[in-house]
Amino acid sequence: MKTTIGVGLIGTGYMGKCHALAWNGVKAVFGDGPRPVLVHLAEVNAALAREKADEFGFERSTGDWRALVADPDVEVVSVTTPNAFHAEMAVAALEAGKHVWCEKPMAVALSDAERMAAAARASGRVAVLGYNYIQNPLVRQIGAILADGTIGAVNHVRLEMDEDFMADPDALFYWKSEASSGYGALDDFGVHPLSLLHVLFGGVTKVFAHLSKPYADRPTRDGARRAVETFDIASVLFEMAGGISGMMALDRSAWGRKGRIALQIFGSKGSIVFDQERFNELQLYVTSDRPTEQGFRTILAAPQHAPYDRFIPAPGHGLGFNDLKIIECHELLRAIAGAPARVIDFDAGLRIERTVHAMAQSHREQRWVDVAHA
Amino acid sequence: MKTTIGVGLIGTGYMGKCHALAWNGVKAVFGDGPRPVLVHLAEVNAALAREKADEFGFERSTGDWRALVADPDVEVVSVTTPNAFHAEMAVAALEAGKHVWCEKPMAVALSDAERMAAAARASGRVAVLGYNYIQNPLVRQIGAILADGTIGAVNHVRLEMDEDFMADPDALFYWKSEASSGYGALDDFGVHPLSLLHVLFGGVTKVFAHLSKPYADRPTRDGARRAVETFDIASVLFEMAGGISGMMALDRSAWGRKGRIALQIFGSKGSIVFDQERFNELQLYVTSDRPTEQGFRTILAAPQHAPYDRFIPAPGHGLGFNDLKIIECHELLRAIAGAPARVIDFDAGLRIERTVHAMAQSHREQRWVDVAHA
Amino acid sequence: MKTTIGVGLIGTGYMGKCHALAWNGVKAVFGDGPRPVLVHLAEVNAALAREKADEFGFERSTGDWRALVADPDVEVVSVTTPNAFHAEMAVAALEAGKHVWCEKPMAVALSDAERMAAAARASGRVAVLGYNYIQNPLVRQIGAILADGTIGAVNHVRLEMDEDFMADPDALFYWKSEASSGYGALDDFGVHPLSLLHVLFGGVTKVFAHLSKPYADRPTRDGARRAVETFDIASVLFEMAGGISGMMALDRSAWGRKGRIALQIFGSKGSIVFDQERFNELQLYVTSDRPTEQGFRTILAAPQHAPYDRFIPAPGHGLGFNDLKIIECHELLRAIAGAPARVIDFDAGLRIERTVHAMAQSHREQRWVDVAHA
Amino acid sequence: MKTTIGVGLIGTGYMGKCHALAWNGVKAVFGDGPRPVLVHLAEVNAALAREKADEFGFERSTGDWRALVADPDVEVVSVTTPNAFHAEMAVAALEAGKHVWCEKPMAVALSDAERMAAAARASGRVAVLGYNYIQNPLVRQIGAILADGTIGAVNHVRLEMDEDFMADPDALFYWKSEASSGYGALDDFGVHPLSLLHVLFGGVTKVFAHLSKPYADRPTRDGARRAVETFDIASVLFEMAGGISGMMALDRSAWGRKGRIALQIFGSKGSIVFDQERFNELQLYVTSDRPTEQGFRTILAAPQHAPYDRFIPAPGHGLGFNDLKIIECHELLRAIAGAPARVIDFDAGLRIERTVHAMAQSHREQRWVDVAHA
Repeated sequence: MKTTIGVGLIGTGYMGKCHALAWNGVKAVFGDGPRPVLVHLAEVNAALAREKADEFGFERSTGDWRALVADPDVEVVSVTTPNAFHAEMAVAALEAGKHVWCEKPMAVALSDAERMAAAARASGRVAVLGYNYIQNPLVRQIGAILADGTIGAVNHVRLEMDEDFMADPDALFYWKSEASSGYGALDDFGVHPLSLLHVLFGGVTKVFAHLSKPYADRPTRDGARRAVETFDIASVLFEMAGGISGMMALDRSAWGRKGRIALQIFGSKGSIVFDQERFNELQLYVTSDRPTEQGFRTILAAPQHAPYDRFIPAPGHGLGFNDLKIIECHELLRAIAGAPARVIDFDAGLRIERTVHAMAQSHREQRWVDVAHA
Repeated sequence: MKTTIGVGLIGTGYMGKCHALAWNGVKAVFGDGPRPVLVHLAEVNAALAREKADEFGFERSTGDWRALVADPDVEVVSVTTPNAFHAEMAVAALEAGKHVWCEKPMAVALSDAERMAAAARASGRVAVLGYNYIQNPLVRQIGAILADGTIGAVNHVRLEMDEDFMADPDALFYWKSEASSGYGALDDFGVHPLSLLHVLFGGVTKVFAHLSKPYADRPTRDGARRAVETFDIASVLFEMAGGISGMMALDRSAWGRKGRIALQIFGSKGSIVFDQERFNELQLYVTSDRPTEQGFRTILAAPQHAPYDRFIPAPGHGLGFNDLKIIECHELLRAIAGAPARVIDFDAGLRIERTVHAMAQSHREQRWVDVAHA
Repeated sequence: MKTTIGVGLIGTGYMGKCHALAWNGVKAVFGDGPRPVLVHLAEVNAALAREKADEFGFERSTGDWRALVADPDVEVVSVTTPNAFHAEMAVAALEAGKHVWCEKPMAVALSDAERMAAAARASGRVAVLGYNYIQNPLVRQIGAILADGTIGAVNHVRLEMDEDFMADPDALFYWKSEASSGYGALDDFGVHPLSLLHVLFGGVTKVFAHLSKPYADRPTRDGARRAVETFDIASVLFEMAGGISGMMALDRSAWGRKGRIALQIFGSKGSIVFDQERFNELQLYVTSDRPTEQGFRTILAAPQHAPYDRFIPAPGHGLGFNDLKIIECHELLRAIAGAPARVIDFDAGLRIERTVHAMAQSHREQRWVDVAHA
Repeated sequence: MKTTIGVGLIGTGYMGKCHALAWNGVKAVFGDGPRPVLVHLAEVNAALAREKADEFGFERSTGDWRALVADPDVEVVSVTTPNAFHAEMAVAALEAGKHVWCEKPMAVALSDAERMAAAARASGRVAVLGYNYIQNPLVRQIGAILADGTIGAVNHVRLEMDEDFMADPDALFYWKSEASSGYGALDDFGVHPLSLLHVLFGGVTKVFAHLSKPYADRPTRDGARRAVETFDIASVLFEMAGGISGMMALDRSAWGRKGRIALQIFGSKGSIVFDQERFNELQLYVTSDRPTEQGFRTILAAPQHAPYDRFIPAPGHGLGFNDLKIIECHELLRAIAGAPARVIDFDAGLRIERTVHAMAQSHREQRWVDVAHA
């Protein structure tokens, strides 16, 4: 087995840093797999690239991402630039024979996402998206509970994703309120809960969506007001295979919510409740408990919930958000090694993107829309 | 001022008992208003009527509710029989010049509800519905918070009402699964969250609903299976005046939920979260708190939240579900005395019923339906 | 069986009202037992007595409690006056052949409590104390869980009772800070957790206590400051039979705590956690759950937890604080009828008082003190 | 400024891995300070040392920790071996002119801890202990809240540290039950809450302790039973400067508790509540909120709580347990650079150890013991 793997990273914003932390930590956490060698870092500002290469531990840096893609020592490329650049970079890297780890969502335009998925298929390389929430050991545990029938047949699912970074009506208009950035909460947020539905249920089949704007306009720097073009709130009804009904709320102007992705799953023998704001906890209700003592259990993440054990040997001590990225990195390495891996590859990612666009269509046409699966 | 008021009660099931408890306790709790004299109790089974009259403290009993309605000592009639009987009894009582306190929902058929509202208008008597959740002192506090602008302009509301009494797929088919009982969760549950929206926001203007069945059929006593005709789950999108968007989930087969009515209200300066399962608590987030110390406050019901103080002088000791009925009874007495009162009268109740039927229509026609307001 | 019982009530403060509500509601709630006839109400202010008799539903009133005790129609006397009067009134009522329902604590002086217990023994009447927290259906459920071995052998118990009515350092000096009122939190609060330990474990055997004053002095009405003589905080270590170790914290100046009585019970096979501020919930952890799914269950009070079912037929709807008094009243009536009853009689109450005084002695002498059991 | 620092690590158990993760991540997280060069790893098993050096990213390895201490490229030594080895290794490293980062507690015997502190003072090097809980940004925030008077003058503090790794009575006897390992929960756990009291209040002045054994004996591998020599439960009363009273519970056999370090701080104007099991949350109650809306706020860790912002730019996303070690590593580097740093050095650590031994003495002598401060 190869003992090292050469890593390139494009982008040095938060997600770039998050990838860097994962590449630095994955071998020490998991012990197995190749040791990542941090070869090349690209950032449009060459000076910043140099500075960040030093911080993140990369050997060399460049202001030209194409130089990184051309670097023969680079075997896998992390793409963490703004969404608009994903397609071009990911396709180039794949065409250069590199594996790709690209941040979500794939792209603003569906056609770009389709191009990325086609390039991945053509390349024979591993191309995965950065859907880190699915890597939570307790989300895996939810999957295990569903699979072994503990809560019976699922009949209803609810999802809420709420944050408050667009909640202040006095905050200045910026690009997230421009139509060119997308639909709003729908694509900005929707892909996350959809990634959970993908790994837990195989995705949705039918959607009905309603988009709304909490604030019609926002102040601009010059003291005027500009009309908001995106929808900070999306309310969605959906159906999944087997007639499971569902609801999804997406709101990026929900004061007090900071990283809420609340999931409720109701089955014929029990229920599961989860909230990302307390992502080291899982709530489970089962009807097999004695009637006088039935209640939602608060299960704390523990070594029994692999791969929590690779981080901490004691239960209830808590993983962090960045740890999920280390798990994701490890799954990517497993995929590259040809082992079974829990990843959302470009094909699965494309299905998620199509679902988002189906929701937008539903809102425009005010009707239920079937989600076409590739 | 009159010092007593003669009370008649029709029905001795749980809600009958709940009314009896309220009539027995209201004077001792509030101190003001007339002293209820428990005059007459009607129950189709005359022996049971006699037994319950003794338990509940009524002077006389009857197996014929019309005798109660005709009793000149009865000034106000509690109607707590099954929904199918509400219209006939309430109309008769109003026509006999009695005030009426009728359990919700008004009636299965919209035409019956319309008849009740018309009778109330014609009678000049007080006719109110038993929407007890609105009487919670903390629901009043939510109203006060909304009114004084603490959370700014509301832009999004979510409601969930979940219980699990229909969650067991092996439970025998009974009348709640028959179409004759109504739509299912929609009317069985929907009126409760709608009563909250009525007092807090004036009700909804537009609805889109989707109904679903967790279980296609159920076992019957004779070992066969019978198709379920009602929908135990309803998923609803709605809009309210001022463009407030909303979502409502209704599920009577949600394992582990026992009396959940979860409310989330998002405004431009803060948020409110409430759950009936912990109805002595209220969560409030406001942006006026210092940034490093902002968070949802858990506010415990306290004497400052009138009329909690009439029950307990110390904060955080907790009202019970039946106490809400005592408050409702007191509001009814206030209405009868011509004082301002927090009640849902038959006209308001009719608007709630119309909203439920608009939801059912939306489901049938798969489109947004405007709610006609009387 | 007698079908009625004549009731006298001394005192019209909050606890008087609470007793009145219980006497008014008990028959309607439980259906069984005699119907209380509210005969006589005594209150030192005769005009107030008259007014409250009307509100509470008593037939007659008096400014002289001895007249009430002498009233042949009165069979049971509720004593709800300030603690200093309990002994005199309870003893007189017992000597007059009445049953007695006296609020806790028994008395400020241990000798008075002893006199009360002796009078009760001599009278052959039922004499019980108003320890309402033990009547919570979920506290009974805790007892059932302990009894059936679900959490194995208990080895450690923690109790905290916290409120904040003495927390404001700027509040005026009043009688609760005078030494004549007792020790402070120790007797004001300590009896409540001790009542729980009594019904669950049979009480404590050994105590070590430390008392402290959050505020050395307080402002007086005339602008001066007066030294605080009582201890608003008590910190106690204790032991129970079988070598169970325990800790008890009592604090009546704990900002934000409103009615907290937090209980943690640790056994060889599980744990129980309870907080009176959410007294319709119980937390249970058992090691028999599957390892990946072990966690504290939040059990909501339900009809399975008798006598919750007498109040509400649906689970999770919530009893109120005053409902606990109705249960207590029913247990008193059972005791009077000679049936097994869950009450703390004057003998058990005396043991609780002795425990409190042993704690005070421990603080004075800075050593462990054995609690002498009568 | 030096741009690199040479690191040696002794020990490859969980804490060794945790140090390795911190050394690998600190530069990428914080951006500033020297880049750690992972030079030398020591582990008594040389083959294991080699394997772990590869996993953790160390250049060379050894089976002889003295070789590491003698390595001129090593500038700072992480000591993560069992407690019994701390003194010898730390003293040797300090005498060799290295900085030392030693896991807590310092040593089993107080004399060893004293020797370590003396060696640190003599060396002129930085010597700090691995008290990671104090590095939580929200614990820093608690300190800030205390410092700015938000909750007024503190009068009472409670601490509980509970886990359940010794809770199973059927688990085999192992070294943690031998007297040679220490007192039990007192030293195994006590140092953690004491580290919090040290940074928040400057430590305790007076203690009264009671130790107890949940299980008198345990099974051995050969089917016999062996008496337990250590105390899995400790119950402690304490006082701090300014007459603050306190209670501390330590229990390593508390079923269901996994990493609980619960802290309650009561002041004259508010209260703070914290639990390590949800260490990304902080509860704050302040009396300055409007009376109808006072309640404990649940504050989620956010970028405003430095150095959370160095890990994640969005609030409420959650740090992990291992992240606290990265912060600790950064503080160590600051101390080495001569900058103000939040660390518990060997002198402060010695005071914590003395407090633990004072507690043990109190238990033996059943009296309050003053804690001598160096």
